[in-house]
Amino acid sequence: MSDPDYADLGRRMHALATRLFPLPRSLAGKPYRQSLDTIEEVTGPIQRHRFPSGEQVFDWTVPPEWEIREAWIKGPDGRKVVDMVDTNLHVVSYSVPIHRRISLDDLQEHLFSLPHQADAIPYRTTYYRRDWGFCLADRVRRELPAGEYEVYIDSELADGHVEVGEVVVPGTSEEEVLLSTYLCHPSMANNELSGPMIVSHLAKLLTDRDPPPRLTYRCVFVPETIGAICYLHRFGGHLREHLTAGYVVTCVGDPGPFSYKRSRRGDTLADRAALHVLGHSGASFRVLDYYPAGSDERQYCSPGFDLPVGSLMRSTYDTFAEYHTSLDDMELVTAEALGDSLRMYHRIAEALEAAQRLEVTMPYGEPQLSPRGLYPTVGAAKSLQQGMRDMMFLLNWCDGRGDLIAAGDRVGRPVWDLAPTARQLLEHDLLRPVPHG
Amino acid sequence: MSDPDYADLGRRMHALATRLFPLPRSLAGKPYRQSLDTIEEVTGPIQRHRFPSGEQVFDWTVPPEWEIREAWIKGPDGRKVVDMVDTNLHVVSYSVPIHRRISLDDLQEHLFSLPHQADAIPYRTTYYRRDWGFCLADRVRRELPAGEYEVYIDSELADGHVEVGEVVVPGTSEEEVLLSTYLCHPSMANNELSGPMIVSHLAKLLTDRDPPPRLTYRCVFVPETIGAICYLHRFGGHLREHLTAGYVVTCVGDPGPFSYKRSRRGDTLADRAALHVLGHSGASFRVLDYYPAGSDERQYCSPGFDLPVGSLMRSTYDTFAEYHTSLDDMELVTAEALGDSLRMYHRIAEALEAAQRLEVTMPYGEPQLSPRGLYPTVGAAKSLQQGMRDMMFLLNWCDGRGDLIAAGDRVGRPVWDLAPTARQLLEHDLLRPVPHG
Amino acid sequence: MSDPDYADLGRRMHALATRLFPLPRSLAGKPYRQSLDTIEEVTGPIQRHRFPSGEQVFDWTVPPEWEIREAWIKGPDGRKVVDMVDTNLHVVSYSVPIHRRISLDDLQEHLFSLPHQADAIPYRTTYYRRDWGFCLADRVRRELPAGEYEVYIDSELADGHVEVGEVVVPGTSEEEVLLSTYLCHPSMANNELSGPMIVSHLAKLLTDRDPPPRLTYRCVFVPETIGAICYLHRFGGHLREHLTAGYVVTCVGDPGPFSYKRSRRGDTLADRAALHVLGHSGASFRVLDYYPAGSDERQYCSPGFDLPVGSLMRSTYDTFAEYHTSLDDMELVTAEALGDSLRMYHRIAEALEAAQRLEVTMPYGEPQLSPRGLYPTVGAAKSLQQGMRDMMFLLNWCDGRGDLIAAGDRVGRPVWDLAPTARQLLEHDLLRPVPHG
Repeated sequence: MSDPDYADLGRRMHALATRLFPLPRSLAGKPYRQSLDTIEEVTGPIQRHRFPSGEQVFDWTVPPEWEIREAWIKGPDGRKVVDMVDTNLHVVSYSVPIHRRISLDDLQEHLFSLPHQADAIPYRTTYYRRDWGFCLADRVRRELPAGEYEVYIDSELADGHVEVGEVVVPGTSEEEVLLSTYLCHPSMANNELSGPMIVSHLAKLLTDRDPPPRLTYRCVFVPETIGAICYLHRFGGHLREHLTAGYVVTCVGDPGPFSYKRSRRGDTLADRAALHVLGHSGASFRVLDYYPAGSDERQYCSPGFDLPVGSLMRSTYDTFAEYHTSLDDMELVTAEALGDSLRMYHRIAEALEAAQRLEVTMPYGEPQLSPRGLYPTVGAAKSLQQGMRDMMFLLNWCDGRGDLIAAGDRVGRPVWDLAPTARQLLEHDLLRPVPHG
Repeated sequence: MSDPDYADLGRRMHALATRLFPLPRSLAGKPYRQSLDTIEEVTGPIQRHRFPSGEQVFDWTVPPEWEIREAWIKGPDGRKVVDMVDTNLHVVSYSVPIHRRISLDDLQEHLFSLPHQADAIPYRTTYYRRDWGFCLADRVRRELPAGEYEVYIDSELADGHVEVGEVVVPGTSEEEVLLSTYLCHPSMANNELSGPMIVSHLAKLLTDRDPPPRLTYRCVFVPETIGAICYLHRFGGHLREHLTAGYVVTCVGDPGPFSYKRSRRGDTLADRAALHVLGHSGASFRVLDYYPAGSDERQYCSPGFDLPVGSLMRSTYDTFAEYHTSLDDMELVTAEALGDSLRMYHRIAEALEAAQRLEVTMPYGEPQLSPRGLYPTVGAAKSLQQGMRDMMFLLNWCDGRGDLIAAGDRVGRPVWDLAPTARQLLEHDLLRPVPHG
Repeated sequence: MSDPDYADLGRRMHALATRLFPLPRSLAGKPYRQSLDTIEEVTGPIQRHRFPSGEQVFDWTVPPEWEIREAWIKGPDGRKVVDMVDTNLHVVSYSVPIHRRISLDDLQEHLFSLPHQADAIPYRTTYYRRDWGFCLADRVRRELPAGEYEVYIDSELADGHVEVGEVVVPGTSEEEVLLSTYLCHPSMANNELSGPMIVSHLAKLLTDRDPPPRLTYRCVFVPETIGAICYLHRFGGHLREHLTAGYVVTCVGDPGPFSYKRSRRGDTLADRAALHVLGHSGASFRVLDYYPAGSDERQYCSPGFDLPVGSLMRSTYDTFAEYHTSLDDMELVTAEALGDSLRMYHRIAEALEAAQRLEVTMPYGEPQLSPRGLYPTVGAAKSLQQGMRDMMFLLNWCDGRGDLIAAGDRVGRPVWDLAPTARQLLEHDLLRPVPHG
């Protein structure tokens, strides 16, 4: 199985993200659905799990859909000083409709800017309180003259559905892997579109895999927080039973070094596989203990579910200056970084594929290898080849308790180097898989 | 709840200890009872658990009471060379009465001094063998002329009681804390009176606490070893069921750095609370693994009980030169050190108060904070305040398995900073306490 | 119990190994039996467990016996260029009989030499494929002229028995120790004869021990691999039930520093005892994690048995250049190294003897020591002697869960220094042994 051309895929991902960038996505509504439609060009059909507005999901209520058509502020001289035509970020997400004349002083209470990043337009939302507002560069805000302003937001909040998109790549075993990303931020690149790009293209690689994968992959596109909560409300029980590893895929498009944030339990297969791949990659990376800020891992790792879900990122949400501003754009994200991130997630998936629990079929004394053609027939050679050492190691170590990644970690060998030897021993009926559970 | 004036309490403790210093305390008898009477000025009534002489307590027999009225040695010239009037330490504790003329050679077998501390008078006892003796400075002993001496000890050993004094500060839960100190050494300050001073004044602070404490505190004054054994003989079963943490309080009056000696199990709540407080105190301290020499922790941590009892000291009994000599006096002990030690034990008590086990009431997905007024209503701010981080951490971490000190240790936060957030979440029914056991 | 004269025993072991060196041992046959007969001079009668050729033992078939009488190659000029008279290594072990004229080119396929060790004759076997061959120095091989050669091997493969020799030194408890070594290599010293020398002389020391040992020692001499498999096939169930520690004894004759290879489980009594002895020996040593290459530990530690068997060696099989060549001779092995290795294994045996699990008979509070004559009668001395500290430590630590080696490791004391105190407490009925299991 040769590697795909990750550099080329990186360029394709960047191009697709560039097309998705202008859509005014929010938690629910047309632009969200259009984004999924566009991603289907890569993945094929995406199943839509629909949750009606008003439905109670755990402690939350499914919000209405939001449609935004136009939003601007006109200054005292009648000229537009802020216009959503320039960037979706100008209007606070889920703003109610308004059309009003208002003094600058009163307007200020509805304006958001960043004094320390004077050129950046911040990203703000008002999902759970009916309100309205505008975001703008602090440099612009400071220049606003006193006087009467006209504010106009042509939006609509109406019952509809929150939707979760899902691509399932079926495997041959009962064990499942979750790849979860979010698709609710308008016009942000690293902290939004990089995730769906990696998940969609990884879904494609897994769908095309020959042979088909051992594990079932659930590739999930959600509006952040509420989407994960909706998905867990419907499928949480299933995940608790079947999920062997999972990742929240976000912030994977910038060229910073990798960061792995552990699952809540800290030593799940998700963690071991990611750290195994990172450790053998030669790349520099840092490891973060779980903490319940960040993204949807907060829901997957809530104590009632406590799923084995971590997150491999580049620069994490809380560490890059462009986060949640207009500076998080398609220049911050590079084709090369996207390609490298895809490679890393792809390797993790392959490590998970190899991470079977195996046990020897002949546990009493060593099996005799030479009659099976697995051992040099003239004995007593001075040193063993690595393949031979791997074989003897696996025939001793595999007692059904640990998986092949743990085997590799025990002796400092990458699982992809042990896997061919394991397959050979499976074919000779010297190893057998241990059933899940 | 503002801090008490520890400096002032330190001065009061020093003054009270100075009053108690001259009494010729021993395992049992009038001076022991008088000392308890005096301490009642601080604590209010102290309950006396009485154990009659001759009663079998585990492997031990309760000793008689000892009364000492006079003890001296006259030299060949008829002048007193040693006289208990100068210090109680001159007479070996529990010496039988004697009045005899004796040669210097024979007398030597009943004399105790310290060749390497020529000016110090050692402290010796003969509790479990009927004998007599005198302690004196080696410098004096060396000058004794040959000849006939007159020795006189007017003492009495008579059946009576060993007494254990106890102040119980009742709490609202079934869990208990033991604060044990000893009161059987005549005229020693750090390795005796510093302990009862801290325990009595801490008992007072806990009694006056508003609101009353969650935990029940047993403040216990014993004659060392036999008193702890008596107490365990009567209450050991109760302690095994209810004790959540305990400390032997001794050697807390000198200005040396703190030393924490772990309980036998090594990682009990007693240990975690003490190390949590020390670690966040900024003070320098050392940590000692449990070892079965020292004081009454030997009884509380005997393998059949194995109670969660450690000991926070300053200079430990085995490391300061003045230990068990006349140099362990009210100059070695300072008001400032007593005040600092009280502060540290008081903080430990408050850490124990906060160390509830809590669990989230909504374990599936995050609870929604904004409708409860616990979250900023305009989302997507770039960074969270510490209080917000604490709240999200507690709502994720609290699954009923660890207590709030463990929560703090997980993220490097002092429990007293987490506690207000925990209280807020308890009030909003987002957390609930886990029953003990 | 004074130490034996290990230096003298080292000289005796070297002399005996020198006598055994010339015998053409292989897996089974007369020289193997003769070697056992010779070793009986040290150990007394060795029981022979016999396994008939053709019998199935787990995945293996017991091989035939091999007799080798003569083996040589004559060059084109009719002169012998290789002759087994010079060294047993010249003929590949288990070669079938042959007498044939053959070209140099065809002969080359049956020749084995070491290009990078031109003067060394390698050691090769063909146990499990009917074949023949010669081993020779690469320097000689390179000089062989083209032409026709005459090869002659007068050997015989015939049904008989694989034999395992066993000396049992009976102990007073149900727990057993395995000392396993191998005896199937012709004319090799460190990687063969050093092991049987240590095991036989240790068996003798244990047999002569006064009092007799607490543990039962099984001293086992096997042909490598197949012998261990045969032994496990017959006695593996017994060992699983009774074995408390075991060692594969090999490569213990060279003067290199010690190497301890852990058992598969890594922290068994075998490991703790060996590391305890090495750690307190002052000798330099290294510790190797278990790996399933090497010697018969591969069988004892196969996952179905997973016995507590490690291996204390000097230079390990895979690290000394002379391994499996004619250079592994009686000059590589020294009397002094043999004596030192015997001392180390003897100490390990004595550490195992001392490694009882003990529990206090009076677990509630401390027992009173002075009435038993175990404590100074005049109390409050400033420091305790080490013996006194040991006593108090054991009376607190011994709760029946750990053994005396673990007790020593807890406080950094060698078990042989704790053992006399433990015996004293056993005699005073303050400690008692905990039954095995």
